[in-house]
Amino acid sequence: MARSPRCAAGRRLQLPLLCLFLQGATTILFAVFVRYDQETDAALWHWGNHSNADNEFYFRYPSFQDVHAMVFVGFGFLMAFLQRYGFSSLGFTFLLASFALQWSTLVQGFFHSFHSGCIHVGVESMINADFCAGAVLISFGAILGKTGPAQLLLMALLEVVLFGINEFVLLSLLGVKDAGGSMTIHMFGAYFGLAVSRVLYRPQLEKSKHRQGSVYHSDLFAMIGTIFLWIFWPSFNSAPTMLGDGQHRTALNTYYSLTASTLSTFALSALVGGDGRLDMVHVQNAALAGGVVVGTSAEMMLTPFGALVAGFLAGTVSTLGYKFFTPVLESKFKVQDTCGVHNLHGMPGVLGALLGVLVAGLATHEAYGDGLESVFPLMAEGKRSATSQAMYQFFGMFVTLMFASVGGSLGGFLLRLSFLGSPPDSQCYEDQIYWKVPGEHEDEAQGALRVEEPDTQA
Amino acid sequence: MARSPRCAAGRRLQLPLLCLFLQGATTILFAVFVRYDQETDAALWHWGNHSNADNEFYFRYPSFQDVHAMVFVGFGFLMAFLQRYGFSSLGFTFLLASFALQWSTLVQGFFHSFHSGCIHVGVESMINADFCAGAVLISFGAILGKTGPAQLLLMALLEVVLFGINEFVLLSLLGVKDAGGSMTIHMFGAYFGLAVSRVLYRPQLEKSKHRQGSVYHSDLFAMIGTIFLWIFWPSFNSAPTMLGDGQHRTALNTYYSLTASTLSTFALSALVGGDGRLDMVHVQNAALAGGVVVGTSAEMMLTPFGALVAGFLAGTVSTLGYKFFTPVLESKFKVQDTCGVHNLHGMPGVLGALLGVLVAGLATHEAYGDGLESVFPLMAEGKRSATSQAMYQFFGMFVTLMFASVGGSLGGFLLRLSFLGSPPDSQCYEDQIYWKVPGEHEDEAQGALRVEEPDTQA
Amino acid sequence: MARSPRCAAGRRLQLPLLCLFLQGATTILFAVFVRYDQETDAALWHWGNHSNADNEFYFRYPSFQDVHAMVFVGFGFLMAFLQRYGFSSLGFTFLLASFALQWSTLVQGFFHSFHSGCIHVGVESMINADFCAGAVLISFGAILGKTGPAQLLLMALLEVVLFGINEFVLLSLLGVKDAGGSMTIHMFGAYFGLAVSRVLYRPQLEKSKHRQGSVYHSDLFAMIGTIFLWIFWPSFNSAPTMLGDGQHRTALNTYYSLTASTLSTFALSALVGGDGRLDMVHVQNAALAGGVVVGTSAEMMLTPFGALVAGFLAGTVSTLGYKFFTPVLESKFKVQDTCGVHNLHGMPGVLGALLGVLVAGLATHEAYGDGLESVFPLMAEGKRSATSQAMYQFFGMFVTLMFASVGGSLGGFLLRLSFLGSPPDSQCYEDQIYWKVPGEHEDEAQGALRVEEPDTQA
Repeated sequence: MARSPRCAAGRRLQLPLLCLFLQGATTILFAVFVRYDQETDAALWHWGNHSNADNEFYFRYPSFQDVHAMVFVGFGFLMAFLQRYGFSSLGFTFLLASFALQWSTLVQGFFHSFHSGCIHVGVESMINADFCAGAVLISFGAILGKTGPAQLLLMALLEVVLFGINEFVLLSLLGVKDAGGSMTIHMFGAYFGLAVSRVLYRPQLEKSKHRQGSVYHSDLFAMIGTIFLWIFWPSFNSAPTMLGDGQHRTALNTYYSLTASTLSTFALSALVGGDGRLDMVHVQNAALAGGVVVGTSAEMMLTPFGALVAGFLAGTVSTLGYKFFTPVLESKFKVQDTCGVHNLHGMPGVLGALLGVLVAGLATHEAYGDGLESVFPLMAEGKRSATSQAMYQFFGMFVTLMFASVGGSLGGFLLRLSFLGSPPDSQCYEDQIYWKVPGEHEDEAQGALRVEEPDTQA
Repeated sequence: MARSPRCAAGRRLQLPLLCLFLQGATTILFAVFVRYDQETDAALWHWGNHSNADNEFYFRYPSFQDVHAMVFVGFGFLMAFLQRYGFSSLGFTFLLASFALQWSTLVQGFFHSFHSGCIHVGVESMINADFCAGAVLISFGAILGKTGPAQLLLMALLEVVLFGINEFVLLSLLGVKDAGGSMTIHMFGAYFGLAVSRVLYRPQLEKSKHRQGSVYHSDLFAMIGTIFLWIFWPSFNSAPTMLGDGQHRTALNTYYSLTASTLSTFALSALVGGDGRLDMVHVQNAALAGGVVVGTSAEMMLTPFGALVAGFLAGTVSTLGYKFFTPVLESKFKVQDTCGVHNLHGMPGVLGALLGVLVAGLATHEAYGDGLESVFPLMAEGKRSATSQAMYQFFGMFVTLMFASVGGSLGGFLLRLSFLGSPPDSQCYEDQIYWKVPGEHEDEAQGALRVEEPDTQA
Repeated sequence: MARSPRCAAGRRLQLPLLCLFLQGATTILFAVFVRYDQETDAALWHWGNHSNADNEFYFRYPSFQDVHAMVFVGFGFLMAFLQRYGFSSLGFTFLLASFALQWSTLVQGFFHSFHSGCIHVGVESMINADFCAGAVLISFGAILGKTGPAQLLLMALLEVVLFGINEFVLLSLLGVKDAGGSMTIHMFGAYFGLAVSRVLYRPQLEKSKHRQGSVYHSDLFAMIGTIFLWIFWPSFNSAPTMLGDGQHRTALNTYYSLTASTLSTFALSALVGGDGRLDMVHVQNAALAGGVVVGTSAEMMLTPFGALVAGFLAGTVSTLGYKFFTPVLESKFKVQDTCGVHNLHGMPGVLGALLGVLVAGLATHEAYGDGLESVFPLMAEGKRSATSQAMYQFFGMFVTLMFASVGGSLGGFLLRLSFLGSPPDSQCYEDQIYWKVPGEHEDEAQGALRVEEPDTQA
C-alpha cells in the first residue's frame, strides 16, 4: 500500500489501456480476416438450393445458448461464493470471457476455418469460442482472488493461444476425439491455472484467510452457478458433436453421469464430514464432476450404465480431493487452488481422458454400425484400429498435460511482472481494491483496510 | 438432542449408506435393463434412411432443457424462501431430483418403453423422468423443513413407483389425456405430500415458528425460482405433446393462462391484505397456478380466451387458499403444508382436471379436424365419444387422488420409522443440523441451538 | 401521509379493481377477436400437407424462450439493485409485463395479423408481445421507485397502444427495418419513460437519497439480470428476423457487439473512476449497450468487424453517459432517470438507428445476392434504392422520437391524476408501502417511516 503516486497513476491507467489495446488489436484483425461463413452470409446462403431448415443455426443454436449461459452465469456465480469477492468474480468473468470470445475466434479460426485468407465464422465458431472461454475461466478459478484484472487479461491472451494450439494438435493432428473437452477444456484449463498458481505462490496468504470463506448468502449465489452448470452440461458436451444420434446420445450420457456424481458427492460429503454433516463446497463443485468425466466419452457408445459408473467415480474422487488433497496441494506442492479446480476439472478430467481411452479401445463395428463414420471416422475408413485410436487418446492426454503445465508456468512468470501490481497478501479476496463498493459493505471493508495496512507497511 | 453416541454414529452413516445403496441398485438395474433407443444408438439410428433433422432430439431437446431448468432452478430456489433453510432447500432438491431421475427412468421405462426385455431411453424418457422428479419435489414442498435427507430419499423411492403406476393407469389403461400433468404431476405430488405431512403432523411445531418465515434476501432468492418456473411453464406443458400444432398450441395456451393468473394474484393479494399491501408469498406461488390449471387442457382446443379464464380462476383460488385455507388445513385437518403446495398444485390441479373434463367433453370433429387423431386418438378412431372421454378424464382424477392419498399415507408411516431420526420440533427449518454453515450464520444458529436445547431435553 | 380514512380505503381498492378491470376487458376482447393461427390450430394445421417439422414453432420457440427470460429474469433482476426495492422491482415487472403481453397481443394483432375480423396468434405474436413488454419495462426503469403499481398499469395501458402505432408506422407504412428494435423498442421505451419522468419531476427527491443506492447483495442480484440479458441478447435481436441466414447472422453480430461493449465499458469505467476502480453500475448496464446498438443493423451485412466497432462505441457512450450525463439530465433537464435508461437504451438506441441508416445506405445487390429479398424486400423489388431506404430509416428515427416524447408526456400527465396516489418524496424506492416485508427488514423500514412521517405532514 506504500506505493508512489506516479506508480499509482500508472496502475490506474493499466486496465483501461490494456482493454483498449486488446480491443483495438482484435478489431483490426477482425477487419482483415473475419468473414461470415456460408450459412451466415446473405449472398452465399441464398446461392444454391438450401431449405432454411437446413441452416446449421437450427441444429446448434439452442445448445450454443446453453453453453453461453454456463460460461457467464455458471462460472460467474460459482466463483461468487467468496464473501467479499462477488463483484470481482462476476465482473472479471464477464471481462475475461468477453475478451476470450473475440481472441479465440481469431486463434481457433486460424487453425480450423482459415480458407483463402479468411476466417469464416458462424454458430460453430461461437460454440468453440465459448469452450475456450470456459478453459480460461477454469484457470481463473485456481487463482481467484489473488490477481488483478490486467493480470487476468494477459493470462487470457496467452492461454487462448495455447488452448488453440493444443486443441489443433489433439483434434486435427492426432485425430483424438474429445467433444466435451475432458482434455482440451477441463484438464487444460485446470493444469494451466494450477501452474500459474504455483508460480504465483504466496507463503503469506493466510493474512487474507478471514476473507477466503463464504457467508450464508454468498453460498446461495454460488448455487446459482452450480445449478446452471449442472442442468446445461448435457448441452455443453453435445454442442459440437455430430448431428443426429451423436448429439442425442451425448446429452443422454451426460445427464445420467451428473445424477450419479450428485449422489456420490452427497454420500462422500456426509461420510468424510466427521459429524455426518454435508459440506456446501462439495455440493457446489463435486456434484458437477459427472459432466467433466464424460466429456471425452459421452459421444461414444458409453451406455447409460457406463455413464452412471463414470459419474459415480468422478463425484467420489472430486469430493475426496476437496477433503484430503487440496490441503496437501498447498502444503506440499505450494499450489493454492482457490476454487479447487484440481478437484472439479483436473482429476475428473484425467479420469475422463482415461475413460475415453477405454471406451475408444472397446469400440467395434458391430456396436456402432454405420455410425462409426461419425464417431471414429479414421476407424471407419480402416486407417486405425480401436486399439490404436485408444493409444492416440492416451497420448493426447499427455500432450495436453504438457501444454498446460509448461504454458501455465510461462503464464505465471508473465503475471509476476512487477508493474502489473497484484494485490498484497493481506488484500486478497477483496473487492474493494478494484471496485467501488456500496456503503454498507465499504464501511466494514475500510475497517479491514485500516486494520491491515500497517501490516503491509511493516 | 439427547441421543446416545452409538445412535449418533448410526445416523451419521445413514445418508451415505442410503445414497450408496440406492446408487448401487440403480446402477445394476441400468446395466441389466437400460439401452439406447433407436434415435440415440449409433448403429440403430444409422440403420435405415433417416435425415439427421428427423431425430426426435431436435424437436424435444429445447423443451427438455427448459423442464430441466424448472426442476432444479425453479423448484430449488422457490423453496429457498426460508431464512435458515436455503442450503437444504437447494441441496435436497438436487439430491432428491437426481435420484428420482435415475429411479423413474427404470420405473417409467418398465411401464412405457419395455421392449424385448429392455428399457429404451432417449429424450422422451429424459422429459418423463424430469416430470416425475417434479412430482417428488412438490411433495417435498409440503414437508419442507421437517424431514431429513434420508427420509426424503425413502419417500422418493416409494413415490416414484406410485407415480409410475398412477401415470400408467391414467394414460395407458384409461386413455386419459394429461400432457402437462394437472393430475399425474400436480395433484399427485401435492396430495401425496399432504398425506405424508398429515401422518408426520407435529403439534409442537410452533417451537420453530421463528424460523418458518423468510427474510428480505431469501424472498429475492425465492423469486429466482418463481420466475424461472413461470417463464418455462409453456415448455413444461408442451414438452411431451404431439409435434407440430400440438406443442405450439400448448405453449401458447399456457403462456396466456400464466399472465392471467399473475394479474388475478396481484388483485386478490392486495384485496385480502387488509391494508392493501401485497404479499410476496402470493406472488411467488399463486402467480404460477395458471401453469398448473391448464396442464390437462392446454393441448386441447382451449382457445386463448379459455386460457385467460382458467388462469384467472386458478390465481384467484390459489391466493385465497394461501390466505384462508392454509391456516384451516393446519388447525382443522392437522396438515402442515410448508410451501402451500395445496394452494399451488393441489387445488389448481383439481381445477385443471375438471377443466380437462369440460374441454374434452366439448371436443368436436369440426373443431379439431384431422388433428383429432393427435389429441384424442380414441375419439378419432370412433372408439369413444367426447362425453365418454370426459367421463374417463373425470374418473382419472379420482384414481389419482386415491393413489396419492393412500400412497402418501403409506409414505408417512415409512418416514416415521424411528431410526430415520427426523429433526426435533425445535430444530425444524434449520440448515445447521444437516450442513456445515459458514461462520457468520453459524454463530446465530448455534445461539439458537443453545437456547433451545434445554427445551427439547425437558 | 395525512390522508383521510376514506381516501386510504379507496387507494387500497385501486390496484385490485384496476387489475380486475383490465383482466376483464382483455378477456372479453380475447373472446371476441383472438383465434389460433394456422400453425397453432388443430384443424387448420392438419388441413393441407405439412410436415410437423415445418411448423414455425421449431424455428422460433427457442428464441422466444430466451426473449421471455430476458423480459422477466433480465429486466426484473436488473432493476433489483436498489437496497429496499427488490420486491417492487421484481413484482411490478411481473405484473406490468403480464398485462402488457395480453394487451399488446390485442393491439399488435389489430395492426399486424387482423384477418377476416380476427386476430391470429402463434409464436410470432408471442415474441412481438414480449418485445412490447420490454419497451414498457424500459420506461418503468426511468421512473423506478417513484410510482405505484396502479400508475404503472395505466402507463402500460397507454404505452402499449402507442408502441403498436409507432411500430406499425415504421415497419408497415415506412418500410423501415428494425428487427431487434433499436428504434421501436429501445428508443421508444427510453424516451417515453424519460418524458413520463420529466412530467413527474420531484424537486424534493433527495429526501429518499439514502435509499437510492445499492447494497452489496442487491448488486449481485442485479448481476443476475445483467448476465441473462447479455447472454440472450443474440436471441432477442434474431427472434423476429427472416429464417436461415437472417437469424444466424443477426445472432452472430449481436454476440460480437456485446463482447466489445463489455471491454469498452470496463476500460471507460476504470478510466473515469478517478481512483481507477470500476463501478458496478457501469458493468451492470453499459456492458449491455452492444445489444441495443445493433438492434437495427444486426440482420444486415454489418460484418463482424462492424459489430465490434458498434459495440465498442455503444459501451463507451453509455459509460460516459452514466458518469457525466445522468447528473446533468437531472440538474438541467429535470429528468430523474432511476436506472439510467437514457444511457443504456436511449443513446445507444439513437446510435443504433444511425448505424442502421449507414448500413442500409451501403447495401448493394452484390453483398446480399439473392438474400436481398429477405433483408430489404423493397430494394430487391426495385422500388427503393439503398439511399432512399437509408432516408426512410432516418425518418423512422424521428417518428419514433416524436411518438415517444409526446406519448410519454401524455402518460406523465395521466399519472399525475391525484387519486392515483404516488408515493411521497420521502418514501420513494421503498418496498414497504406496497408490500408486506418480512420482519428483519420491516423493523428498519418502519423506523424510517416513523422518522420521516412528520416531514411529509409539514
